Amino acid sequence: MTWLDIPSGHPFGVAALPYGVFSTPADPHPRTGVAIGDLVIDLPATVRRLAPSLAGAVAGPSLDALLAAGPAVWAELRGLLTTWVTDEVHRSHLVVRDDAIMHLPFTVADYVDFYASEEHATNLGRMFRPDQAPLTPNWKHLPIGYHGRAGTVVVSGTDITRPSGQRRSPDGEITFGPSRRLDIEAELGYVVGAGSVLGEPVELGAFDRHVFGVCLVNDWSARDIQAWEYVPLGPFLGKSFATSISPWILPLAALDHARVGPPERTVPLLPYLDDEKAQPWGFDIRLEIRLNGHVVSQPSFAGMYWTGAQMLAHMTANGASLRTGDLFASGTISGGSPGCLIELSWNGTKPVRLADGSERTFLADGDEVVISATAPGPDGSVIGLGSVAGRVRSPLAE
Amino acid sequence: MTWLDIPSGHPFGVAALPYGVFSTPADPHPRTGVAIGDLVIDLPATVRRLAPSLAGAVAGPSLDALLAAGPAVWAELRGLLTTWVTDEVHRSHLVVRDDAIMHLPFTVADYVDFYASEEHATNLGRMFRPDQAPLTPNWKHLPIGYHGRAGTVVVSGTDITRPSGQRRSPDGEITFGPSRRLDIEAELGYVVGAGSVLGEPVELGAFDRHVFGVCLVNDWSARDIQAWEYVPLGPFLGKSFATSISPWILPLAALDHARVGPPERTVPLLPYLDDEKAQPWGFDIRLEIRLNGHVVSQPSFAGMYWTGAQMLAHMTANGASLRTGDLFASGTISGGSPGCLIELSWNGTKPVRLADGSERTFLADGDEVVISATAPGPDGSVIGLGSVAGRVRSPLAE
Repeated sequence: MTWLDIPSGHPFGVAALPYGVFSTPADPHPRTGVAIGDLVIDLPATVRRLAPSLAGAVAGPSLDALLAAGPAVWAELRGLLTTWVTDEVHRSHLVVRDDAIMHLPFTVADYVDFYASEEHATNLGRMFRPDQAPLTPNWKHLPIGYHGRAGTVVVSGTDITRPSGQRRSPDGEITFGPSRRLDIEAELGYVVGAGSVLGEPVELGAFDRHVFGVCLVNDWSARDIQAWEYVPLGPFLGKSFATSISPWILPLAALDHARVGPPERTVPLLPYLDDEKAQPWGFDIRLEIRLNGHVVSQPSFAGMYWTGAQMLAHMTANGASLRTGDLFASGTISGGSPGCLIELSWNGTKPVRLADGSERTFLADGDEVVISATAPGPDGSVIGLGSVAGRVRSPLAE
Repeated sequence: MTWLDIPSGHPFGVAALPYGVFSTPADPHPRTGVAIGDLVIDLPATVRRLAPSLAGAVAGPSLDALLAAGPAVWAELRGLLTTWVTDEVHRSHLVVRDDAIMHLPFTVADYVDFYASEEHATNLGRMFRPDQAPLTPNWKHLPIGYHGRAGTVVVSGTDITRPSGQRRSPDGEITFGPSRRLDIEAELGYVVGAGSVLGEPVELGAFDRHVFGVCLVNDWSARDIQAWEYVPLGPFLGKSFATSISPWILPLAALDHARVGPPERTVPLLPYLDDEKAQPWGFDIRLEIRLNGHVVSQPSFAGMYWTGAQMLAHMTANGASLRTGDLFASGTISGGSPGCLIELSWNGTKPVRLADGSERTFLADGDEVVISATAPGPDGSVIGLGSVAGRVRSPLAE
């Protein structure tokens, strides 16, 4: 128990310690912080006094310097923070979390989105290619991924303007206008800290030497725009208008107790992806998706076919280098329960009924989506990943 | 004629004035410069003395500040440079271009690759989908594009390590190893200077308020890796290992005399893409591709189906914002003559014979590719885009 008297079961207890960037009405300069209970530790102020050698790593208006500092510094700082929060922290370096305005926590370098949930890929295959096998032939050989738009990654709480684009009606008419099939995608994002050298792949076992931590991702998707544009070069404007991330980046170390083995692989893996004898990098993370306050789905991450370590090994197998701030996401998590509306409403044919009696196939203007998640921590505790929220704003008037 | 006595027909004459970032053995700090004839104007040193109010825009180890400064500053600086080079420049601020080591000229924010050549798309469609219409149904309705990897954009002269990846043999065997079908793609790149606001599309007519200039792009492609991975989410590792750009960014203003109208559009365009009554943003640019010194193709850019202005309008039609340093490229330019080996060798079935008697279907280790280009300038002059070069390096030993 910490001196802060955090209630047992609090998602931001002493074993979580996620990092973010915040400001306050009293001090509008964005700065790094750590969430503990309902408070935020002001990192620059605290570290400058208690561990001055680490001051550079937590300076600046983002987590960029900390991400770039690498795993030895990440471990040292987390060790110190654990001591401080279980022992004593100078009160003056704390801010009430409700007063904190959260900012995009790091500069997103490249953003890659994977497609790692077998349930999700199978469901979408059934909907869109009913005459073929639901999974494409490559799906169990490699984690399919593609690059998304890094410049439109926004922090939780940012309003999402409904995108416009080209849509093809069932009778083949092409029109331009606001998306009629705006959807969410609940995903886990991996944040790269330490970069790598161009031409040198990063092996499975090096995952935690490069990846700093995880966040929640809502990869907003305009299904009608995407359906018309995506052959042959993949999703583009159907995804690039906005991607929301949770403001608190949970370090990998906080998920030590949540690690689980990968699911049974039904196709043999090439050596660079084979994690049979490696440390498992699956996570027992449980998500909850709320639409206007009503729970609509509770997907489980544990059964994802591909792990983050495999995604990283694959993404760099061709020698592509990593940079500090690279973000790669799991793709929609549909374990047990779907992580998007197109599955929940089965391609818009079966409206989802909310607890207040309203119905949705896709998102309406004004809808608010909140995705939150937790994982098991030490001694029966809970580790929170926080949440990613966003509200749909009407399209601009023409 | 300038005092520098640049030979008539020199591609970097007084009407070109491209910007880059260079260092010298004597002064290894990367700094901004302008190419004139066989010299480089050291911009920080020159501007500090002759136009101190613009010193901030040319400071730093990249063109980032100049890009962000926007069109009024771009025009002011170009006007001053034109005066200086046709009048007098202090000799001490000049460097011999052969002594300059060129660096990546700007921080690449997001990288998008289009597919705007009808000849290229038609040829690839014929090869890969012989039983279908060569162009996908969307091709003439919108400029197809996808996001590439910004972190692996490298400057001309950087060696390209042959990438490894998953390849599927004709009999369906999946193996991992070096690409056997390494190719080039000769493209034009557009460099975004002034950013835009999330949620607000950039109209066709605003092209030159956002785009600073152009460069040459070699979008190296591993055709075997790409063929196996790209369904359904598009190219990923087949492209992400490296993209080379020319070191000199030619400002749009230098292409005033090269502007040509777009080709006849055979499908009516939606209003946001309709450039019938707009200023034309096609360019009469002629490219030359050399493989180990031998010319293998001379594609023309003039007939590209989609212009850069249409690509920009499309890319932002969904509200996606632009950032300083965004790079978007035309896709392979195959006007009259192909811009890649897969077309030149017709999917590897017809080897290309070089002048030295050697033959190629795809690239061999050690091969050097140089793509250069010129455009018409004022008074019968030539405007050079410089060149983008790269040599294929053997894959790393296992």
